[in-house]
Amino acid sequence: MYEAFWKEAGERTAVVIPGWRGMSYFSDAGGLCWFLEPEFEREVRRLHRLVGNAAVDGYHLVVGTGATQLSQAAIYALSPADANHPIGVVSPAPYYSAYAPQTDLLLSGFYRWAGDANAMGGDSHIELVCSPNNPDGAIREAVLSSKPGKAIHDLVYYWPQYTPITGTAAHDIMLFTMSKITGHAGTRLGWALVKDLEVAKKMTYFVDRSTIGVSRDSQLRAAKILTLVSDAYDDDKDTRRLFDFAQRCMADRWQALRATVASTGMFSLPEETSGYCTFTKQIVPAYPAFAWLRCEKESVENCRELLRGHGVLAQGGELFGGDARCVRVNMLERDGVFDVLVQRLSSIE
Amino acid sequence: MYEAFWKEAGERTAVVIPGWRGMSYFSDAGGLCWFLEPEFEREVRRLHRLVGNAAVDGYHLVVGTGATQLSQAAIYALSPADANHPIGVVSPAPYYSAYAPQTDLLLSGFYRWAGDANAMGGDSHIELVCSPNNPDGAIREAVLSSKPGKAIHDLVYYWPQYTPITGTAAHDIMLFTMSKITGHAGTRLGWALVKDLEVAKKMTYFVDRSTIGVSRDSQLRAAKILTLVSDAYDDDKDTRRLFDFAQRCMADRWQALRATVASTGMFSLPEETSGYCTFTKQIVPAYPAFAWLRCEKESVENCRELLRGHGVLAQGGELFGGDARCVRVNMLERDGVFDVLVQRLSSIE
Repeated sequence: MYEAFWKEAGERTAVVIPGWRGMSYFSDAGGLCWFLEPEFEREVRRLHRLVGNAAVDGYHLVVGTGATQLSQAAIYALSPADANHPIGVVSPAPYYSAYAPQTDLLLSGFYRWAGDANAMGGDSHIELVCSPNNPDGAIREAVLSSKPGKAIHDLVYYWPQYTPITGTAAHDIMLFTMSKITGHAGTRLGWALVKDLEVAKKMTYFVDRSTIGVSRDSQLRAAKILTLVSDAYDDDKDTRRLFDFAQRCMADRWQALRATVASTGMFSLPEETSGYCTFTKQIVPAYPAFAWLRCEKESVENCRELLRGHGVLAQGGELFGGDARCVRVNMLERDGVFDVLVQRLSSIE
Repeated sequence: MYEAFWKEAGERTAVVIPGWRGMSYFSDAGGLCWFLEPEFEREVRRLHRLVGNAAVDGYHLVVGTGATQLSQAAIYALSPADANHPIGVVSPAPYYSAYAPQTDLLLSGFYRWAGDANAMGGDSHIELVCSPNNPDGAIREAVLSSKPGKAIHDLVYYWPQYTPITGTAAHDIMLFTMSKITGHAGTRLGWALVKDLEVAKKMTYFVDRSTIGVSRDSQLRAAKILTLVSDAYDDDKDTRRLFDFAQRCMADRWQALRATVASTGMFSLPEETSGYCTFTKQIVPAYPAFAWLRCEKESVENCRELLRGHGVLAQGGELFGGDARCVRVNMLERDGVFDVLVQRLSSIE
């Protein structure tokens, strides 16, 4: 979806990396996160200050190979090393489908995926709080009465194109990723803002041991991309503004999808919410990155199957610990793919 | 050490990545390893054919965030999923010090670091075979009478600057990494050549779940770098040949180190070995990436402590499951660092 924006922006978006640049393992040998490129860190902090979505002062920054690696690093850092059995990792259903295999398949020595947080109690779990939530776009707070420091906030969609920025988040651990801001999924680059020094050290250790740091090429490229994003808002005359572009795209797509859903009469979507956005300084609707589409027809028990029969591929609700009457529709597909999806949905009777 | 080569090679070594390139998660959506850039794969296969160090025909290529991630992926792929307890992972001492924390700290559900392979028997372990070996440069074969498919060959140093290429390796799983070939450690890019389709699929799944693929920026850059390396050998007049340069550097450094060690009379090094190299077509000595330095003075039980007292930092032998009278000296440091090291060693009495 974002490709059009970057093509339009032209040659000035290119990063040039000479053969001798960034060869060493170390980006910042004396730093806490020694594989973090200083210019990438600078641009990340600058962007958060510009948007106002997350506190950066007093926070340590840990870079990772996408938010995926960082969520594992955070769980590792919060897991008690001396426990007799693995600590449970939970999130309220519907939850991001990748949380389960990330935790259970790879890292089951210290912790174990335990499923729906709504079914748990007490303070002996680590909770992944995804807000806005993947797959349903809901704004969430931690549901477990956890001890301090046992929640991980996955805020990868807390950007102005997806939701009004209603305040500066200041949780203990906050995860972000390039792919959901600028569309650069292929750079595999995420970061964590971490309040506690010891937790930041443990997360750094995890990334060190699992991949000996993070691609410096990706960091150099991302620094360039983020510089362009912020620069456009510093210059009153610059009209090539990423969040404006992306919000218009999302608005158009949600309008098209809601119109189609209304016309078929067979499906429902979460109600549109809106709020005052401190970044755009206006009341704006939320345009989640995914649509949590529910089939309301009594006879249909599996929405994914129904859609597949009409050439629409979507992930079934049960993957997210939720209802099979729901599916997750990706709102960030390329234009052509999204148009076909809406067209095919509209033909279902 | 390689930085001088790439600086000398100049501007033509630069990679240029426009803002819109490589944005998607997918590099090759229909491929087995869907996050592998086709041009990177092409250059990797070309380089192995040029050097003749490893078979590529009939092998699947899986890319990873360094050989570190791939060794975990390979162990995961070889671990029985239905075992009641974790399978042991072993390597003969002295073994690469990072094998232990990579396996034990991160991934202890399915497997567990079990230490020195020489102390084991039977066929119930996974063996990491590092050849030439880190830390001591030894040429190794699997020591356990393992079942087929239970050895992982870590061949990251099997390149002409470090050892004569004596044959085309054709093991079940072979690991390589950019950092040890061209010096680009910061790209965090490795690959595995894998004979068995199911193992390659499992390794791909591991990389998918742990980092959702591998930086495409790193792959694009590495493709460019490897193209230059191979091109120089295709053109008879090109004198900027990486392996020639690197071998000269290694020869100079080993000569300097051996002369110093001989002059102090306090230390010993593994004996120099040599062999006919099918790549250079001459008999050449091995120049390992690390020197396994042993203190021969009776009164010294900890070589690392002794060296530290003289301003020489090296990793102690016990980290590698070996003797504390030994240390691992990095032969790939920057020129200035290496020169100081030799100078300080020569002053020890």
